[in-house]
Amino acid sequence: MPFTTQRKVRFQHCDPAGIVFYPRYFEMINSVVEDWFEEVVGHDFNRLHVTSGTGVPTASIETQFHAPSRLGDWLEFRLTPLATGRTSLKLQVTACCGDQRRLTSVSTLVFVDLASGSPLPWPDPMRRHFAMDCQQGLHDA
Amino acid sequence: MPFTTQRKVRFQHCDPAGIVFYPRYFEMINSVVEDWFEEVVGHDFNRLHVTSGTGVPTASIETQFHAPSRLGDWLEFRLTPLATGRTSLKLQVTACCGDQRRLTSVSTLVFVDLASGSPLPWPDPMRRHFAMDCQQGLHDA
Amino acid sequence: MPFTTQRKVRFQHCDPAGIVFYPRYFEMINSVVEDWFEEVVGHDFNRLHVTSGTGVPTASIETQFHAPSRLGDWLEFRLTPLATGRTSLKLQVTACCGDQRRLTSVSTLVFVDLASGSPLPWPDPMRRHFAMDCQQGLHDA
Amino acid sequence: MPFTTQRKVRFQHCDPAGIVFYPRYFEMINSVVEDWFEEVVGHDFNRLHVTSGTGVPTASIETQFHAPSRLGDWLEFRLTPLATGRTSLKLQVTACCGDQRRLTSVSTLVFVDLASGSPLPWPDPMRRHFAMDCQQGLHDA
Repeated sequence: MPFTTQRKVRFQHCDPAGIVFYPRYFEMINSVVEDWFEEVVGHDFNRLHVTSGTGVPTASIETQFHAPSRLGDWLEFRLTPLATGRTSLKLQVTACCGDQRRLTSVSTLVFVDLASGSPLPWPDPMRRHFAMDCQQGLHDA
Repeated sequence: MPFTTQRKVRFQHCDPAGIVFYPRYFEMINSVVEDWFEEVVGHDFNRLHVTSGTGVPTASIETQFHAPSRLGDWLEFRLTPLATGRTSLKLQVTACCGDQRRLTSVSTLVFVDLASGSPLPWPDPMRRHFAMDCQQGLHDA
Repeated sequence: MPFTTQRKVRFQHCDPAGIVFYPRYFEMINSVVEDWFEEVVGHDFNRLHVTSGTGVPTASIETQFHAPSRLGDWLEFRLTPLATGRTSLKLQVTACCGDQRRLTSVSTLVFVDLASGSPLPWPDPMRRHFAMDCQQGLHDA
Repeated sequence: MPFTTQRKVRFQHCDPAGIVFYPRYFEMINSVVEDWFEEVVGHDFNRLHVTSGTGVPTASIETQFHAPSRLGDWLEFRLTPLATGRTSLKLQVTACCGDQRRLTSVSTLVFVDLASGSPLPWPDPMRRHFAMDCQQGLHDA
């Protein structure tokens, strides 16, 4: 089952055209990845970054914005892992308002040592959650 | 000649890992597009949005982050128009710090009527600047 | 009873020092005021701004930051109306993490016509909610 | 002489009412303090935070917003140190657009050790710059 979570379009997200300013979507997408790491992968970002001295920077991200979102809209975000590499992870994040798809994003994260910036192999306990999820992602697709 | 402009990596752009939080790059990219519209295309965003009731929402954007940027880095942004459609415009934006490429982004903007959200054909005075620039972009490539 | 709501300290709120970058607190405070207008006053920000062509800009705000907040902290925000003027409203917003007070903020909002920027008297249905809340605020204090 | 620097009101700063969203002013104010530390005090934020393991969190800030700022406005920010304590510093920051004052802000920063969060006495080379500036501030007032 993909991971889903809700976000409300707030005043702080909207531009003078009255719609979400697209850089704010990336803050929302990052917060969805953050929730998924905490709730599904079992590593919250505080433990990941502060305690463990590791990080998950985004190496690339491709996003289509299908329709604008407006102040007060409730967006359902859905995260599906697509593929796991030795040190990387490919994720799809989508957002819908009711039946309308608002965005589709595919990103690649890399697990790194913060001090050196070098990629690290995913620890097995984390990888296990990606793998299960990827399999489910395929079944769901 | 591509359009270039400088941005400094500030405290507000950096995350607990001490590097630029990637959604902040999209604020910078948007500000570069804003400067290009004002200085090259000859339509500032105030005139475009407020006076004319039009907008240039981003329909899609693909970005690779090649290397992290740190507090105090000076980034040189370079904007090159790649292709003009009847109502759309494809742009490449890159950022370098010295000799090191930090990001490469390709986005598609659409010219729209803000009230209806419908795409509008680019006015000729704007299109002329895109065309010249696209040609130059090809010569430079 | 003051209005309370929770906010989680996310990656996007934190600076290279690993603590909340104070401008992000103001985004949180604004979102708390937004929720209070929707849930208590009965006017959501979309209706207020887009449908009615009015706004509630902040005229002044004083904030003390008592202790830093860190990635992953859950903050309980509490909003108490302090005083109502003909066109203005004085609010206190506090945030605590467990027993520890993190910030205390007092702001003055003004109800304005967006087109002219001129202050407007609060409509009675809105004012009634402020008054009730102010009274409760006094009883609670 | 107070320290002055310019900021342009950009699309990213503006809200659906078409004026600067006040939390974005605090990002601008912080960037002005950042420039002043680098250009006047002689300690850039990278050296201050990353190399030295110190920080200058804001302990309190009071701000009046006198008039709204709009997309495309150029704001002149002016920073004047008001008073220096053993571990703290009181600053005034104002912003004007032409002859019109837009905001007045008074904040107190504290010099801290990032690891422990404890206040530190300002190093003499930094303090000397505050003192000179405060004196000038008094003469200017």
